[in-house]
Amino acid sequence: MFKLGIPQSQEAVDTEKAYQAVIIGRGSAAYTAAIYSARYKLDSLIIGKEHGGAITDAHLVENYPGTLKISGAGLMNSFLEHVKKYKVPILEDTVVDIKKQDSLFHITTRQNIIIKSRSVIIATGTKRRQLDVPGSEKFLRKGISYCAICDGPFYQDKEVGVIGGSDAAASSAVLLSQYAKKAYIIYRRDKLRCEPYWLDLIKKQPNIEIIYNSNVVGLIGEEKLEKVKLDTGNTLELQGLFIEIGSVPSSEMTKSLGLALDKPGFIVVNAEMKTNIPGIYAAGDITSLLPRFKQVVVSAAQGATAANSAYDYIKSLKD
Amino acid sequence: MFKLGIPQSQEAVDTEKAYQAVIIGRGSAAYTAAIYSARYKLDSLIIGKEHGGAITDAHLVENYPGTLKISGAGLMNSFLEHVKKYKVPILEDTVVDIKKQDSLFHITTRQNIIIKSRSVIIATGTKRRQLDVPGSEKFLRKGISYCAICDGPFYQDKEVGVIGGSDAAASSAVLLSQYAKKAYIIYRRDKLRCEPYWLDLIKKQPNIEIIYNSNVVGLIGEEKLEKVKLDTGNTLELQGLFIEIGSVPSSEMTKSLGLALDKPGFIVVNAEMKTNIPGIYAAGDITSLLPRFKQVVVSAAQGATAANSAYDYIKSLKD
Repeated sequence: MFKLGIPQSQEAVDTEKAYQAVIIGRGSAAYTAAIYSARYKLDSLIIGKEHGGAITDAHLVENYPGTLKISGAGLMNSFLEHVKKYKVPILEDTVVDIKKQDSLFHITTRQNIIIKSRSVIIATGTKRRQLDVPGSEKFLRKGISYCAICDGPFYQDKEVGVIGGSDAAASSAVLLSQYAKKAYIIYRRDKLRCEPYWLDLIKKQPNIEIIYNSNVVGLIGEEKLEKVKLDTGNTLELQGLFIEIGSVPSSEMTKSLGLALDKPGFIVVNAEMKTNIPGIYAAGDITSLLPRFKQVVVSAAQGATAANSAYDYIKSLKD
Repeated sequence: MFKLGIPQSQEAVDTEKAYQAVIIGRGSAAYTAAIYSARYKLDSLIIGKEHGGAITDAHLVENYPGTLKISGAGLMNSFLEHVKKYKVPILEDTVVDIKKQDSLFHITTRQNIIIKSRSVIIATGTKRRQLDVPGSEKFLRKGISYCAICDGPFYQDKEVGVIGGSDAAASSAVLLSQYAKKAYIIYRRDKLRCEPYWLDLIKKQPNIEIIYNSNVVGLIGEEKLEKVKLDTGNTLELQGLFIEIGSVPSSEMTKSLGLALDKPGFIVVNAEMKTNIPGIYAAGDITSLLPRFKQVVVSAAQGATAANSAYDYIKSLKD
């Protein structure tokens, strides 16, 4: 067995054998798929560059059943610990392509490692939608941020804005209001679409102000962001602007497979997390199911279900 | 407001007002539905006689993501604690009927309390399938048991059997092998259908013996169970016999509603946990989804999803 000595890989991986299940992703769906695959005694490998998935940006998770209160990062650390208990190896790399060759899937990573597997569970989640306003590149990390939990503490006693109306936007504003003198929520519609729970917290924070029916159209500043211009004609003095305008699916690596995607690019699955290709399963935020309900417990359940389907498939190959 | 002073009810309930969501059941699906309903600020009530659901019979849960190891009862206690944090009231009673009258659902309990609600989430799970062999009533709690975790300790150094081939049967046998001198697994097929994880544990226990292709057809004993007769003609000396032959849905209370059920009686739902009746949702083991994959994390996700759908429904009524 040839063991790769690539420093980025946490564990040795085997490029010669065929795994029974390769799990792509490192969020709640992928980790749960790994836990279940291990219990099914499938020879499994996780491939993913970054640990934790979308939930790691959440400073406060109070709705993962059985856990009263935890940070998103803390919750994902407990998932990772669970995976480690079952000793599923992790290759820290990004998958760029999946091809079917004969009866095996060939999975190519950015470092050009090729892994073979009989089944694949795709749980790559989503990437944050980027702000498309002139200057958004220039001011990135100089006022523009995609993570309130990471960058919030830099805005002590400053004025900040959050673009968006979702749970993520609301939760970011609540967190930022703890640091900043003032936190604006700038939303294109006339009503936030977050949970009433977050709405209540926002109402209780006197330094949060919601600006409805508005879009940021201009970013102004010398070195750093100083002001934003709204399409209402108003200008706001802001030193920080946090972008929470949704997510797009990370499904590019499935192109060669001919996997059925929906219009925005999410992978179409049925209740058993089966895609249109036997041996390929998907779970979590990357799937077309429940597009407006992205929750850790749902992703975890889908990961478990995908592993169960992969197990049934592997058994059917043997019998 | 008229508050009921019924001793069995943990919290006061209101029989005059219309709740926004009544959740029927007290397992992982119901409790998660309650947590999410509370976050949506729905005026909710849980109705259910017994706390915990099917998982409470499991002595060891190692696949609830993020929790390395816990008893089924311990896990459900953590869910209940989570529900209590959100102060969702619980009526300790059994629902016997649900009727639609005008725009409200009227929910009748065994104690003849009638609760009104705009939406209902049914998460009543399943009941254990009973052993249908002459004498099974006579020897109940005198050798016949439906719960290894409850009754296992009574069989210290005795000989016991488990009927079944599922995860539940395997897990019961593993637990019983810690107490009993000998534990038989008696299964009608030629291969257990449990996870390979359990199969490994069984193989490591020298005092577990699997008897394949066999059914118990006779129960023999004076006061207590002493022997069982198999359809192969063999007789086994056993002081305890644990029944793990599956479950049947607890869906009788839906009769007046005309809810669509599948052939065995599970409630037909779509991915959003919607039934054929607007305002009625179902979640967990009671649903027709994933009939052979009953997992806490899946039930919890379905409970969350059902609450999300109920919230959308309640909003649509208001607008």
